[in-house]
Amino acid sequence: MGSVRGMSDATLPWERPLGATPLGDGHTRFRVWAPHPGEVALRVEGVDHELRDEGHGVLVADVEAGHGDDYAYVLDGHALPDPCTRHQPNGLRGPSRVVDPARLAWTDQRWRGVPLAELVLYELHVGTFSAEGTFEGAIPHLAALRELGVTAIELMPVAAMPGARGWGYDGVYHWAVHEPYGGPEGLARLVDAAHAEGLAVFLDVVYNHVGASGDQALTAFGPYFTGAYTTPWGEAINFDDAGCEPVREWVLQGATGLVRDLHLDGLRLDAIHAVYDSGARPLLEALGARVRRAVPHALIIAESGLNDPKVVRPPEIGGLGLDAQWADDFHHALRTLVTDEREGYYAEFGHVGDLAKALGRPFVHDGTFSTFRDRRFGAPAADRPVEQFVVFCQNHDQVGNRAFGDRLPPRAHPLAAFATLLSPFVAMLFMGEEYGEPNPFLFFADHIDEEIVVATREGRRREFAAFAAFAGEEIPDPMAPETFERSKLSRTEQPGLRDLYRRLLGARRALAGQEVDEVAFDERARWLRARRGAHRLVMNFADAPLHLADEGELVLATHLIEDGALPPLGGALLR
Amino acid sequence: MGSVRGMSDATLPWERPLGATPLGDGHTRFRVWAPHPGEVALRVEGVDHELRDEGHGVLVADVEAGHGDDYAYVLDGHALPDPCTRHQPNGLRGPSRVVDPARLAWTDQRWRGVPLAELVLYELHVGTFSAEGTFEGAIPHLAALRELGVTAIELMPVAAMPGARGWGYDGVYHWAVHEPYGGPEGLARLVDAAHAEGLAVFLDVVYNHVGASGDQALTAFGPYFTGAYTTPWGEAINFDDAGCEPVREWVLQGATGLVRDLHLDGLRLDAIHAVYDSGARPLLEALGARVRRAVPHALIIAESGLNDPKVVRPPEIGGLGLDAQWADDFHHALRTLVTDEREGYYAEFGHVGDLAKALGRPFVHDGTFSTFRDRRFGAPAADRPVEQFVVFCQNHDQVGNRAFGDRLPPRAHPLAAFATLLSPFVAMLFMGEEYGEPNPFLFFADHIDEEIVVATREGRRREFAAFAAFAGEEIPDPMAPETFERSKLSRTEQPGLRDLYRRLLGARRALAGQEVDEVAFDERARWLRARRGAHRLVMNFADAPLHLADEGELVLATHLIEDGALPPLGGALLR
Repeated sequence: MGSVRGMSDATLPWERPLGATPLGDGHTRFRVWAPHPGEVALRVEGVDHELRDEGHGVLVADVEAGHGDDYAYVLDGHALPDPCTRHQPNGLRGPSRVVDPARLAWTDQRWRGVPLAELVLYELHVGTFSAEGTFEGAIPHLAALRELGVTAIELMPVAAMPGARGWGYDGVYHWAVHEPYGGPEGLARLVDAAHAEGLAVFLDVVYNHVGASGDQALTAFGPYFTGAYTTPWGEAINFDDAGCEPVREWVLQGATGLVRDLHLDGLRLDAIHAVYDSGARPLLEALGARVRRAVPHALIIAESGLNDPKVVRPPEIGGLGLDAQWADDFHHALRTLVTDEREGYYAEFGHVGDLAKALGRPFVHDGTFSTFRDRRFGAPAADRPVEQFVVFCQNHDQVGNRAFGDRLPPRAHPLAAFATLLSPFVAMLFMGEEYGEPNPFLFFADHIDEEIVVATREGRRREFAAFAAFAGEEIPDPMAPETFERSKLSRTEQPGLRDLYRRLLGARRALAGQEVDEVAFDERARWLRARRGAHRLVMNFADAPLHLADEGELVLATHLIEDGALPPLGGALLR
Repeated sequence: MGSVRGMSDATLPWERPLGATPLGDGHTRFRVWAPHPGEVALRVEGVDHELRDEGHGVLVADVEAGHGDDYAYVLDGHALPDPCTRHQPNGLRGPSRVVDPARLAWTDQRWRGVPLAELVLYELHVGTFSAEGTFEGAIPHLAALRELGVTAIELMPVAAMPGARGWGYDGVYHWAVHEPYGGPEGLARLVDAAHAEGLAVFLDVVYNHVGASGDQALTAFGPYFTGAYTTPWGEAINFDDAGCEPVREWVLQGATGLVRDLHLDGLRLDAIHAVYDSGARPLLEALGARVRRAVPHALIIAESGLNDPKVVRPPEIGGLGLDAQWADDFHHALRTLVTDEREGYYAEFGHVGDLAKALGRPFVHDGTFSTFRDRRFGAPAADRPVEQFVVFCQNHDQVGNRAFGDRLPPRAHPLAAFATLLSPFVAMLFMGEEYGEPNPFLFFADHIDEEIVVATREGRRREFAAFAAFAGEEIPDPMAPETFERSKLSRTEQPGLRDLYRRLLGARRALAGQEVDEVAFDERARWLRARRGAHRLVMNFADAPLHLADEGELVLATHLIEDGALPPLGGALLR
């Protein structure tokens, strides 16, 4: 007699560890999903090995091999990297290399992570953060970040990407770490050093597409992509169509492995609105659960273009259960008050009232009509705690996706930093902003396919044609090595700015745990006053000084205050 | 001084009533969303009228006109129907006609609807249900349905569709009612008669695409479609991209208007898995809320191909808040036990254990791997009450989308009906099954565009080529009038079947409110016993008789039981 059960629901073959897994006995287990109709062999250090069929297109072999050995899968005579490669020492199209996490050396046994509410993130691009452009080169700069009050660094993507240099969003093998940065061992050294310094490490990962240089090499193995949806950057990854389960595992095991094996404190998920998944078991909910099961203190932060609080609601109330999400509206509301910019999506901001709203919860669009998008946008997020939102006055996009990669104008900078760092949300800095880096952060890449080179270059020129004409200047060529070189931090400091950042981050700690409980503003006089418990923030967005009444004792200000006058684009914290 | 507010969020022009709205003073207000760069005029009874711009592409005019007057919008000289037309008396490409709901005559003032848990639905296709093939022709048959124990009829789509006959899923103007059936006045008469008989009326509506004969006429007005997604049947409707708000209103106001003005008791939403909407305010959640605000007792039932309980969870816990959803798995689990069919998606069913599971909650796939789909499918629905699922042993798809439109074989029929009607879920019958209608229900259409005629005919032939070859018979031509004629109910009754249905529906009422609280089965002996409170259901799927032990007093059985032996494909209810 039977008992009620479902259809057979044993572990499916791809739910076992994919990729190359050293077994600790001199052998490595190679498991690949390759529902490929032709011949598939494993080639390790030049020797071909047969693979055993585990069913559903999953093939496996245990081979005498270990850390540092090169391998590839040979599909009908064509050697291709493992989709789950952890190391591509010779680039996207070279062999894969076995990485044994047990070989990585760690001194962070006592590290326990940083709680979400204490995060002050520092977004950095490994290639331009230091002169060396490597993980190793970043290490000497960590102490200064800690001293400033930063609590975590967030690395722009380091997945194996085309060529030597790039932002990283064209990565293909997201299990692997870009060799020119120092590969997986280099990243491990950086993480270990950061932990020694008391800094957490987050990594930006891209699960919405792969760089166009890589889709064929993946498609040769199986249906990694779907035609059911379109993304702005390439084919949509197959997360809900036939054959999607191993693709989901590619993401789930990849994310979990990165965090677990490289001791990351969390992930920043790129553009999750393009992670299309209409199924009943959302991929991103599973991702959060899996990563946390492996590393309980790990945090998952999403970039989402949806202003949808569901992203950070717990699954019990229908959410994806991610820990936090970026809030671009806060940036736009703030930037349009400290600059005169009104192009593109800035057009619908520029009101002090927008920032007043954003200081409560940072979705200014919470169901309101967006003229830029020509639709209503977002939903209210009042039920979500403030630490579930990440705000910034600069980031790689808001700087690097400007025609000339220019950072906030010096005049606008102090008040922008004041509003961001003293907001109740998790704050994020973009590398160099803490001292007023003068160099731009330009868009650069190093594509290995001629048609992508041309398309990228031309696309960029077209996108910014109006700006180039206005400036009477050519848009920098993304492919040119000097575009990359020009984007490196010069570390030339604007006087006083680093000290302001240090004081703001100090004050931020004093304000911790306190939401904005009252806000007042004058749209015509362009001032805003926000109360956070015993503290009061005063911001002057006008061209004229703002007279501070007897509003309390001055804790700090962005500018010298004489005769109670807060200068234009000044901010003051009182208590 | 400002108070915190969002961006301006006044009512947007398309949130006012769209379509033709008689004002009660001899005038009608015509409002259309037509963000069309050229000339747009309103033509009423041959006279052109200027439209006033309300902003955002919404145009309006108050014109002396009323019920029965013909009108069109003239876009750059081309007269087109109103996308919100309520009546197309001369077909899809003729003029629209003003319908004044105040002119419809009602006698159902005391009607209060049927509670969800008491629904016994009867799906019918207006064109083939009666000899007349009209709403009027259906009325004389209502009394027999009520007497049988049916509590609601569910009409296959009646939106204005190409030609004279069709299933209705190629409809274009979903505010309008197909003229050959009797138009809006005919539908109102049927609803009124059903209510007088004590029957509720549900209408099948299609919001996932429009028939290919209509997309150009809609696109002329605005971006009704999006290229971001693909559907199997046509362009995806634009519910989340630029310009989507008026398209959403087209659906929301259309659904609300149908229910309110035609006194419907609810809607059946076709294939909601293809209603793509990635925004933070799901269209279907809004639809349920809007319809209920207009008609509190109205129920929304979804057809969803996702096995996702979210569809019927309340919005407070992240659901869409719809009232119920179809559960195809129950059908497949049952059908494969009473027949030998194993083609297509039937291949992964056929176990008594599947039906045992489906009697608890009808998602057999609740996260399990589906070999047919090559992915895991569904999620557990244990938190949802049983009345939120609609089950059936036949429906228009499961009959009509067979190569020859054949109904359940007579031998399989009684036990299939027994399991369906005595399940704890909302049950649905397909017209004619209650007496064993011998005529098939074939796929038929009457397309008005030659390329669609050819594509439909050829598509059908290709899809069922193997079946045709096996049967040595041509697949019926969907375009041939005789395919439609052959699908009409003959009303020739199999002896005893109607009485069995009547007894099953009577017993169903006695079991109401009682879930299946215990189930046992034997996969090899192919029997299943399910307890519902004091009652016990015994089903024999074997080829041999099943001996009933001393299991209680017989309430009813599908077959004569002699010496305690339940014949093959027999079911018995005991207490």
